[in-house]
Amino acid sequence: MEWGELRELILRRIRPSVEEERLVEAFCRRVSGELSERLREAGFKAVAEVHGSVAKGTWLSGERDLDIFILLDPGYERDVIPSVLEVVKRYLGSGWVEAYAEHPYLQARIDEFQVDFVPCFRIRPGEPLKSATDRTPLHTAYVREHLKPEQRDEVRLLKRFMKGIGVYGAELKVGGFSGYLCELLIIHYGSFEELLEAAARWRRGTVIQLEVGPDPRELRRRFGTPLIVVDPIDPNRNVAAPVSEDSFWSFVAASRGFLKAPSEIYFYPREERPEAQEILEALRLRGSDLLFVVIPDSDVDVPDILWGQLYKAEKALRGLLERWGFEVLRSAAWSDEASRHILLYELESATLPIVEKHMGPPVEVVEHSERFLRKHLGSEDLISGPWIEGGRWWILTRRRWTGARELLRHHLEVDGGRGIGVPKRLSRRIREGFSLLLNGEIEPYLEGDFISFLHRFLCGRASWLH
Amino acid sequence: MEWGELRELILRRIRPSVEEERLVEAFCRRVSGELSERLREAGFKAVAEVHGSVAKGTWLSGERDLDIFILLDPGYERDVIPSVLEVVKRYLGSGWVEAYAEHPYLQARIDEFQVDFVPCFRIRPGEPLKSATDRTPLHTAYVREHLKPEQRDEVRLLKRFMKGIGVYGAELKVGGFSGYLCELLIIHYGSFEELLEAAARWRRGTVIQLEVGPDPRELRRRFGTPLIVVDPIDPNRNVAAPVSEDSFWSFVAASRGFLKAPSEIYFYPREERPEAQEILEALRLRGSDLLFVVIPDSDVDVPDILWGQLYKAEKALRGLLERWGFEVLRSAAWSDEASRHILLYELESATLPIVEKHMGPPVEVVEHSERFLRKHLGSEDLISGPWIEGGRWWILTRRRWTGARELLRHHLEVDGGRGIGVPKRLSRRIREGFSLLLNGEIEPYLEGDFISFLHRFLCGRASWLH
Repeated sequence: MEWGELRELILRRIRPSVEEERLVEAFCRRVSGELSERLREAGFKAVAEVHGSVAKGTWLSGERDLDIFILLDPGYERDVIPSVLEVVKRYLGSGWVEAYAEHPYLQARIDEFQVDFVPCFRIRPGEPLKSATDRTPLHTAYVREHLKPEQRDEVRLLKRFMKGIGVYGAELKVGGFSGYLCELLIIHYGSFEELLEAAARWRRGTVIQLEVGPDPRELRRRFGTPLIVVDPIDPNRNVAAPVSEDSFWSFVAASRGFLKAPSEIYFYPREERPEAQEILEALRLRGSDLLFVVIPDSDVDVPDILWGQLYKAEKALRGLLERWGFEVLRSAAWSDEASRHILLYELESATLPIVEKHMGPPVEVVEHSERFLRKHLGSEDLISGPWIEGGRWWILTRRRWTGARELLRHHLEVDGGRGIGVPKRLSRRIREGFSLLLNGEIEPYLEGDFISFLHRFLCGRASWLH
Repeated sequence: MEWGELRELILRRIRPSVEEERLVEAFCRRVSGELSERLREAGFKAVAEVHGSVAKGTWLSGERDLDIFILLDPGYERDVIPSVLEVVKRYLGSGWVEAYAEHPYLQARIDEFQVDFVPCFRIRPGEPLKSATDRTPLHTAYVREHLKPEQRDEVRLLKRFMKGIGVYGAELKVGGFSGYLCELLIIHYGSFEELLEAAARWRRGTVIQLEVGPDPRELRRRFGTPLIVVDPIDPNRNVAAPVSEDSFWSFVAASRGFLKAPSEIYFYPREERPEAQEILEALRLRGSDLLFVVIPDSDVDVPDILWGQLYKAEKALRGLLERWGFEVLRSAAWSDEASRHILLYELESATLPIVEKHMGPPVEVVEHSERFLRKHLGSEDLISGPWIEGGRWWILTRRRWTGARELLRHHLEVDGGRGIGVPKRLSRRIREGFSLLLNGEIEPYLEGDFISFLHRFLCGRASWLH
């Protein structure tokens, strides 16, 4: 299909209709108006405003996630937040949940909308922040001022594209591009296609500045991320900081692929949901070994903290396996964010030969040589040697760990993996119980989203690569 | 045992008795006298002289190997050699064998002596050589002049020590210290013990000059060997050139060990001759895989050529195995120098997992990325991916060779291993037939010296290390 035609087809799915726009705007006006009134009545110098994609006209049709900010007068300090949230709670009546990021906020379902009520302090550009969310109103104002109305569809196409290739969202789980970053990129490059043309040629350390700012070399040194997009309302902030190296290169590669052969698949990847039996059959035929660490969790952290811990644990166990000679082909972490986490490792083999070659010191270095000989000549683990080869001492020894499962079990049982770098909270969960499963033993856990996840892992290919 | 006491015990075994000296000297006088006479009668300006250890009084008791040189007048050219050897043949009557190194010579058994008759040209120090053996008479003269009579026992101790630790002999098979080199080392350091004291501290690039010569740095650059001993009768020649790195460090390490705890074992290692069944049992218990290449040979080359080819072939096959991902723990070559050669490889495992991780180009490099994707996306060997990790493309592919035996068989059958670097003459033997045997399959070949060799290989420890 021609790109022009495809573009229209996709826009028809993601651009809100006039009716939807009216509905959403009416809802926003009503809730922010009512809440502002309540705040005023309660004696607060504060107003409720809608921010996020709805406020900027860049939300995708069907989305009903709203951010309502409570802008507090700059005279207040952070200790006012609880009493402000009390006003919101009274307004909502019931059905709210208190959540906590850098400071507390409320989540509530109203009609068909999922609304976050976020307190923040009104500041002007350049002023110091009182809370991490204080910048948001300035971001809204900047985008409203600089994003032309006809560019809103460009942002929508970009967001859908990024969702399709799996790099949308600044949360730790994804490590991708935030909505605000998408808007800045469109403002900077003009359109979806112009952005992709540029991204196809992005290199490590690409610097994008919408306002005049410091030397790019200075920014590269300071931020060190593959992509640096200076926040136009705060030159000390890199809006692209959450973009992981993998997300960055995925976007670059997908941009190239898309420009060569545009396809719907970049926006709407095929969702395959194979049967558990198909997965088990694939595991049997594969030839490698898959080792799963299943961790039940009765008290799950907020996603960004959880995923931070999961990714750290994944790396820690991978490092352990590699240090003991296991060839880790890939690894990944999965969680239902509710009651179960699974780390998985694909290994060339979960068992290693018992004999291992071990390099000793150069013969030339007298003291090290003597220590090496003293240490190994009487050792029970010595299989052969020491002999001299290439000016060094060498021996064959019995490998300490020949099974990957036993190696992990040992370290997870001792202290939940704390000693090898598993973060504290997760190691506590692990100490309460975990399972180490090999290949087909994962069968009882093959359900729901984990099946799709494991299927994608085994395929290992970016969804848009065909 | 005290070193003084031990030293006497060993000297008693290696120092020829007065009777033996008389016997050997009488034999030398008789043969060289008779042969000189025959040469004179045949009209040659040439004399027969004894050289080698007997001529220098440094042979070990019981040794009956003699070098008788036919010193030709410098007026002759190389083409005179065949007719000179004719005279020797007539003198010997029967029982001689013609051999060939750089030029032809004769080997014969006379009484209890094994004698080499080597033609050479009489030259003076500094004059150009006509054949590689022309230096020998000058070496004899140098040693006779500089080695004090009481140092002859020191040379004998040194030779026995080097034989004991397996580094005696300049031939390619050993890559060790020649008799002449032993004599020079004793002349330079004074005594066996003083040499060992020095050798214990030798470093890579040790330079020894008995006469004034060039700057050591210049010599290191020119020769590049771990040990450099300038020939006092030819400053352009490094007498230690044949000393391999492994022999050098073995001597250094053994010197250190001996000085700490002198023992007879350095001079007379325990010769263990286990039963074939013991070897097979050791192979079964070991946990690694031993792969043997057995090459029958009906037309064996002279040892130095044969061993050059065997060592090259050993390395070539080892490189092949390593390139295809097999972990080679050790390798070695054995030959009976008559009808059978065996290359052996100890592998962590003779089989590898079928799945292999393969690194692609950086995503940043557009053209390489495209080529990589084009090449692998349709490939039958692709198991998983391509995916992006750390800025690069990665895939899992089916390994081409999962069995070490099949890999070697393929390359040896195609062209005798010529394409991977097996030397020509040996590759011809291989094309005529070879066996690839794994572990216990070597049983039919477990006989004679090969049993001891394999036993030492499996033990892998220098004989003097205890």
